[in-house]
Amino acid sequence: MTDSAYIPPKVWVWDKANGGRFANINRPIAGPTHEKELPVGRHPLQLYSLATPNGQKVTILLEELLALGHSGAEYDAWLIRISDGDQFGSGFVEVNPNSKIPALMDRSGSEPIRVFESGAILLYLAEKFGEFLPKEAGRRAECLSWLFWQMGSAPYLGGGFGHFYAYAPVKIEYAIDRFAMETKRQLDVLNRRLADNAFLAGDDYTIADIAVFPWYGGLVKGWLYNAAEFLSVHEYTHVQRWADSILSRPAVQRGRMVNRISGEPSTQLHERHDASDFETRTQDKLGTKA
Amino acid sequence: MTDSAYIPPKVWVWDKANGGRFANINRPIAGPTHEKELPVGRHPLQLYSLATPNGQKVTILLEELLALGHSGAEYDAWLIRISDGDQFGSGFVEVNPNSKIPALMDRSGSEPIRVFESGAILLYLAEKFGEFLPKEAGRRAECLSWLFWQMGSAPYLGGGFGHFYAYAPVKIEYAIDRFAMETKRQLDVLNRRLADNAFLAGDDYTIADIAVFPWYGGLVKGWLYNAAEFLSVHEYTHVQRWADSILSRPAVQRGRMVNRISGEPSTQLHERHDASDFETRTQDKLGTKA
Repeated sequence: MTDSAYIPPKVWVWDKANGGRFANINRPIAGPTHEKELPVGRHPLQLYSLATPNGQKVTILLEELLALGHSGAEYDAWLIRISDGDQFGSGFVEVNPNSKIPALMDRSGSEPIRVFESGAILLYLAEKFGEFLPKEAGRRAECLSWLFWQMGSAPYLGGGFGHFYAYAPVKIEYAIDRFAMETKRQLDVLNRRLADNAFLAGDDYTIADIAVFPWYGGLVKGWLYNAAEFLSVHEYTHVQRWADSILSRPAVQRGRMVNRISGEPSTQLHERHDASDFETRTQDKLGTKA
Repeated sequence: MTDSAYIPPKVWVWDKANGGRFANINRPIAGPTHEKELPVGRHPLQLYSLATPNGQKVTILLEELLALGHSGAEYDAWLIRISDGDQFGSGFVEVNPNSKIPALMDRSGSEPIRVFESGAILLYLAEKFGEFLPKEAGRRAECLSWLFWQMGSAPYLGGGFGHFYAYAPVKIEYAIDRFAMETKRQLDVLNRRLADNAFLAGDDYTIADIAVFPWYGGLVKGWLYNAAEFLSVHEYTHVQRWADSILSRPAVQRGRMVNRISGEPSTQLHERHDASDFETRTQDKLGTKA
């Protein structure tokens, strides 16, 4: 590789030409790029998101909470088009200074509360409603261990493997090998756990499953990066069984549709403001703006 | 680059020769490689770790809790030499099926409780002792948002930038650029937050600071990857001020020494079993096994 002759400069300088597919949204500086207020709907919870794996985690949990009858989990889901730079608007940055979806504002109390990072939002909502998080100390610790495992592991799957295998402008063998190996190790960690347990934290479906499913469930279902054959995902039979059982839940199916702007038009619900939005979707509303 | 001609195979296959500096500890499969029980000391908390940034988080919090007088936070810190593969021993895998340090066993109750992932351990201990985690809903949400921010961000610093800049066997310009840009963006996120706040969650020092300090504080202090000049870390003046204030805490200084096997011998405490271990270190005990 001629790359072996590359010597980094003493001081890194931003070269805007060298960013690959996401060059327009990857930046070395934080903060807003433009003034833009966020919309606010009528519900206690205001979600600003997109149906990426991280976005799906939150809409799945909200739909599960509503399915249990928690009316306080009613939410407006507003679309943040990250390829258009919506995450750099001043209003969004006030909710999440890290400029990533999902971001949540809880307006149910006297003072609005912001929550960012999908894992923090899952934990916040699970504690607020007392659901999908075991109360006994040992089982709670197990659930939180797997929740944090997902947060620390998925960057190797998404920002590592997915980027270098599917998105980078050049295929770099070393990088693809590095992150394919780690992704397969992570799948094997899950597969061994799920060989002996129905769900990650044990017998019960929890926010750990809701966090892991959109990433690793999506991977074994062949939804991410067109990488099912490359990673031999059929080998992870216990992850497959677990993903199928989660996918059979109606709340999961609804949650996956919210803020979706790609794929089959019938799977897309660009914004969600009412439970009836899932029933009243029309072709006019869906799939025409993506 | 000749890499532009690389076409990934249909199915990825493990090539043990292509792993770089950590080829011996990076594997595409999980689970134990050998039988080995873990030692158990006399204290309620048994920590199995190494003084990497993730390891330091936990020992800093434990030393802070002990400094506040919580005798229930007494701990034995056992050394896990990851370059020797200790994390693949059967006993370690039982505590952390992900084979990463740190891993904690809480033996204070009737049943031992395992906790893995540094973020989960911080949250578990903060809740157990009621310290370093705000109780008011909005401030607690802010603390947890930054805690999860660290868990989702540092893989880009450590597994991305650090790996490709300092450890990979070949310098790959595209990968170094990608992860340098993201690392600088993350530093700017912190710098803007700390421009207006003493600590990440606001006025109080919390587990969010304890999580972020060993990574981003270490980076701006020039401890990680010899990258201070490359990343122009002097620009992040608020992160520098914050890092200095945290580093001035005696508990932080103690926590950074625990399970350390590199650097100046006087900074190394290979194992910690008693508060007096910090005072009774001898050259015989330190620095000779690293």
